Amino acid sequence: MAKVTPRTLSGFMELLPRQQLQFERMKDTLRDTYASYGFTPLDTPVIESAEVLLAKGGGETEKQIYRFTKGESDLALRFDLTVPLAKYVAAHYAELSFPFRRFQIGKVYRGERAQRGRFREFYQADIDVIGDGKLDITNEAEIPAIIYDTFTRLGVRRFQIRVNNRKLLNGFYAMNGMSEKAGEIMRTVDKLDKIGAEKVRQLLIDEVKMLPCKAENVMDFMAIRGTNAEVLASLERYRGMDATFDEGLEELNAVVKYLAAFGVSEENFAVDLTIARGLDYYTGTVYETIMLDHPEIGSVCSGGRYDNLAEYYTDRQLPGVGISIGLTRFFYVLSEQGLLAEESVGASCDALVLPMTEDLSAAIAAAAALRREGLRVQLYTEKKKFKAKMNYADKIGVPYVVFLGEDEIAEGVLSVKDMRSGEQRKLSVSETAALIRADMSARASAALIRE
Amino acid sequence: MAKVTPRTLSGFMELLPRQQLQFERMKDTLRDTYASYGFTPLDTPVIESAEVLLAKGGGETEKQIYRFTKGESDLALRFDLTVPLAKYVAAHYAELSFPFRRFQIGKVYRGERAQRGRFREFYQADIDVIGDGKLDITNEAEIPAIIYDTFTRLGVRRFQIRVNNRKLLNGFYAMNGMSEKAGEIMRTVDKLDKIGAEKVRQLLIDEVKMLPCKAENVMDFMAIRGTNAEVLASLERYRGMDATFDEGLEELNAVVKYLAAFGVSEENFAVDLTIARGLDYYTGTVYETIMLDHPEIGSVCSGGRYDNLAEYYTDRQLPGVGISIGLTRFFYVLSEQGLLAEESVGASCDALVLPMTEDLSAAIAAAAALRREGLRVQLYTEKKKFKAKMNYADKIGVPYVVFLGEDEIAEGVLSVKDMRSGEQRKLSVSETAALIRADMSARASAALIRE
Repeated sequence: MAKVTPRTLSGFMELLPRQQLQFERMKDTLRDTYASYGFTPLDTPVIESAEVLLAKGGGETEKQIYRFTKGESDLALRFDLTVPLAKYVAAHYAELSFPFRRFQIGKVYRGERAQRGRFREFYQADIDVIGDGKLDITNEAEIPAIIYDTFTRLGVRRFQIRVNNRKLLNGFYAMNGMSEKAGEIMRTVDKLDKIGAEKVRQLLIDEVKMLPCKAENVMDFMAIRGTNAEVLASLERYRGMDATFDEGLEELNAVVKYLAAFGVSEENFAVDLTIARGLDYYTGTVYETIMLDHPEIGSVCSGGRYDNLAEYYTDRQLPGVGISIGLTRFFYVLSEQGLLAEESVGASCDALVLPMTEDLSAAIAAAAALRREGLRVQLYTEKKKFKAKMNYADKIGVPYVVFLGEDEIAEGVLSVKDMRSGEQRKLSVSETAALIRADMSARASAALIRE
Repeated sequence: MAKVTPRTLSGFMELLPRQQLQFERMKDTLRDTYASYGFTPLDTPVIESAEVLLAKGGGETEKQIYRFTKGESDLALRFDLTVPLAKYVAAHYAELSFPFRRFQIGKVYRGERAQRGRFREFYQADIDVIGDGKLDITNEAEIPAIIYDTFTRLGVRRFQIRVNNRKLLNGFYAMNGMSEKAGEIMRTVDKLDKIGAEKVRQLLIDEVKMLPCKAENVMDFMAIRGTNAEVLASLERYRGMDATFDEGLEELNAVVKYLAAFGVSEENFAVDLTIARGLDYYTGTVYETIMLDHPEIGSVCSGGRYDNLAEYYTDRQLPGVGISIGLTRFFYVLSEQGLLAEESVGASCDALVLPMTEDLSAAIAAAAALRREGLRVQLYTEKKKFKAKMNYADKIGVPYVVFLGEDEIAEGVLSVKDMRSGEQRKLSVSETAALIRADMSARASAALIRE
């Protein structure tokens, strides 16, 4: 028979079993963390009507979208989880309770040009809190706590959540009469890290065509540094000059005020006036998250406050705040840089049962008993030489092998071999379960990401 | 602004939050059960090259496939999880260990004609064990144990796993010189439940054009009933007439032999000689699962043994055995028939914290402390009247509301209201956590499906 070469499309991540287990663990950590804050899981279709999905129209993403017809229908694959959320909330408004808190971890599709580390199918892991008309500032204050818990649970300690407020920026530009140039200024300021303050100042004068004194004002503002308390204190000097600025300052103060109560460590959080996060969508607090030892990765968790989730679908005012993690890319980068802790990830099972007798009843019953004790147990019954069986155990990385021969059956015990130490002991089913469970919980608490 | 009507395509399931929680619980139960047997999670792309996905070509499904081009690429959405598995195993053969045991729970796409209860996007939950050249019969014997555990954990007791063996059927038709008509005969016999034995016999004579004595032989064979032991004993009378039949009988004996050791209750298992499951693919043991009080649903979990998983991609012989649950349709039917136990499903959080003071620090710290105790806790800080807050708690179905006012803060306690009993008590953080955890574990052990 003529064969077709089995291949996976470029830009589509397909993991080997051990990597997949790591990826699953990362997804589970996010799921558990999001759920611990009372977010409810949502699962919207991958395919939507193109008219609905592209209601906002235009934009950079449109040409990347997977769009096609099936029968009479003009269809498209979702390219993010925000538009489907907007559709969902608008369509089910009457059946939802607000604030509506949802998380969604799912695949999205963008036909980007294929290149290393760029994915056409990738997971996003989003949370959003949607208000009906209003949404209290405390929701914006809670987001850093969720980011903090997420990365801490993943095993990262050297990260920083950077927070700013769009009202503060917009107010600042307004009080300086630069509102019209705000977009251009923000894009230029965004280069601070790359080209340095002096070159940014020169660009503001030469290309944005600002008066030197105004460029100086911008540079002074962006140069505000220090502890959170110091930054907030420095901002007080601008108070009273613009209502939007004052509102932004109040909000920023509220966000910072409750950090300690939320359990967020000061060293993982910084007010950073250079963060802007795009131009149109966000209207209040904005967030970025940097891995301090790997700034080249860029922000691994970003988002902010917006005023109008679903304006293309409904007249209702639906303000919200949300963050997103590009999980596939994050995992890819961690993996490439060797930052995934191999030892934290178990095999596909906790114990491999190897029967040593012709009749398998005792081995099958032992495996069933261990499963009832909460273990993941694989029974190996292929007719192979002993060495081949142990090779298999090695290859799948199972931590324990359980042998069951005539002697063990007669004694009512199991021979349990620790595959790392090589040590082998005779134990009862419940002793075996206790031994392996202790090992499992040590693995479960080991950090997934090593620094 | 002109609005686009927010709508979800027909044939695409989109659940409200409480239903989604039930669906997630069902998925989790499957995931945990599959993992407990040492199956490893897999996640393959939704989009594949059309050439790869349709390597087998033809077939009924081809016209239902979502196929489209993007740039130069001819693409298609996966329509099952078996073809992607075949591709995966063939592509990654050298990096896998055999037997390779994987589970995958994922969405697949078929452009079926839209009708109630038919889905174009639906979850399948599959497990397969793939051997390299050979695969021991014990793997076929283990499958009923996995089905048994799965449905038992979902809360179903009145179900029956029906098992047959294709070699037994093929051998029987061969010994009667009816091999050529085997397909037609099986399709006719398949109507037994619907039209009864007499009409089936007549159809075999009139339409399949069988001699009456041969039709009688078929009817006698299909009429074999009784306990598993009785059915196996009845089959002994055919032994020695056809090698394939004898092989099938050995296999069936092996599958039945270990049922008790695997912990499968006899009343949930039946050898059923009328089960055939399609014509070409399966070559050994075949499985169906019926909900005894709802036979109209049809088989909710089916599969079987096959000899050649990936013949379109590789010359390697890759025999396997697997089962699949059509999760979306199963969930839909359970929901329609009111078989999902409402009481088993929690809200999106275990406790809602309502601060009663201007300063939120204490409430935020209490919520954080409860989360550290493993609870899912939502903080409610919208500026609403007390009644509106309690309405919200009611609507999201949260079992406990935690109040924190000046008094509680002064006393170092929480006021905890049980929303079902209405009872309110002052408790410490750890007492609160213990109370709610006990309630959570009662919910977690409650059956999802009620009969």
